[in-house]
Amino acid sequence: MSEDKEIEIMQSVYDKNDQVAAEINLSLTKRGIFAVNVMGSPGAGKTSTLIQIIKRLNDITPFVIEGDIEADFDTKTLLSLGVKTIQINTGGACHLDSPMIGKAVDDLNIGKGMLFIENIGNLVCPAEFQIGEHIKMLISTVTEGSDKPYKYPLAFEKADLIIINKVDLIPYVDFDESFFMKGVRALNKTAPVIKVSCKTGQGFDDVVTFLKNFI
Amino acid sequence: MSEDKEIEIMQSVYDKNDQVAAEINLSLTKRGIFAVNVMGSPGAGKTSTLIQIIKRLNDITPFVIEGDIEADFDTKTLLSLGVKTIQINTGGACHLDSPMIGKAVDDLNIGKGMLFIENIGNLVCPAEFQIGEHIKMLISTVTEGSDKPYKYPLAFEKADLIIINKVDLIPYVDFDESFFMKGVRALNKTAPVIKVSCKTGQGFDDVVTFLKNFI
Repeated sequence: MSEDKEIEIMQSVYDKNDQVAAEINLSLTKRGIFAVNVMGSPGAGKTSTLIQIIKRLNDITPFVIEGDIEADFDTKTLLSLGVKTIQINTGGACHLDSPMIGKAVDDLNIGKGMLFIENIGNLVCPAEFQIGEHIKMLISTVTEGSDKPYKYPLAFEKADLIIINKVDLIPYVDFDESFFMKGVRALNKTAPVIKVSCKTGQGFDDVVTFLKNFI
Repeated sequence: MSEDKEIEIMQSVYDKNDQVAAEINLSLTKRGIFAVNVMGSPGAGKTSTLIQIIKRLNDITPFVIEGDIEADFDTKTLLSLGVKTIQINTGGACHLDSPMIGKAVDDLNIGKGMLFIENIGNLVCPAEFQIGEHIKMLISTVTEGSDKPYKYPLAFEKADLIIINKVDLIPYVDFDESFFMKGVRALNKTAPVIKVSCKTGQGFDDVVTFLKNFI
């Protein structure tokens, strides 16, 4: 197949995805549901971050769509905490797309509240696909190192909120915060960057304050 | 576009890739070059692992192809250590493919030795694409957590060598080694699993002993 043909096909995939995403977004907005696309590397602590946030939401009802290639550990954890959660297993696909979310939103029977959509652990592909969200929350970690914004620019560029997780490990790793921030700000002038630890709870009051602004 | 049409197109992409990969593999073998496809999450320590290995190769000449979406920090680091290295920037693509490697192998002008191809930091897509390698080396870390084999099975299934990096951080994180190993062995009965620390050098003599078996 020619390269032109491949590019044309990819464009058609993106266009179809974005159209469905826009429909989902509108439907969620009308129903009073604020949706957060949660992105980060494998093991960045996406589910642990959601648990810390959900604990602090008080009168806002949380819903979670859990994206994984396989397995459902995180869904089981969230359900055990009483959070209305549904699992999507992509069976190999490296990101969630909007048709998957459309179906999950229907199945989950969501009411007014805050919907967290935990994407596949991947700093590349999820950033390319709208899935009906209102904002993208990117979780980076001090253990991944401070060069991540330079190496995976799209995720940092598109994020509306950037969390630096695992700050409790700073004494034991080489994390250059000013180099990290320089990389972030070259791509993204406006997203708040909040340092957190899922171990200690540090920083999550600020995360929740930011999220509640949108409700 | 219909789903059938999309599947057909993806199959054509895989077939073309695998055909070029087989040609590269044969050409490398004939020239006495042993190639290692290095895979792992963002920040798993792929380059740091290569530095530790290369230090211990002694009479074997190392070559590196560095895959990144953007930036060339790791190439600069390796060049500063005197390692013959070439950068591939995919400009967005989430994995290396075999045509990229074919070109890089020609440009790098490789002789007899060991070629490390550092793939994009991603636990999903790189596992789907042959790039002419003789073995796949997967780098996981204790900071990512022990559920990774269950969530990203293909990478663990396809690996010929699995490294658990950052074991110096075990005292500060929750890493359940027996759960991790249970997940690995459900997918992969044969790959050695070696615990290492790029900070202390622990475990790398065993890694190099394993690699030298192939030369």
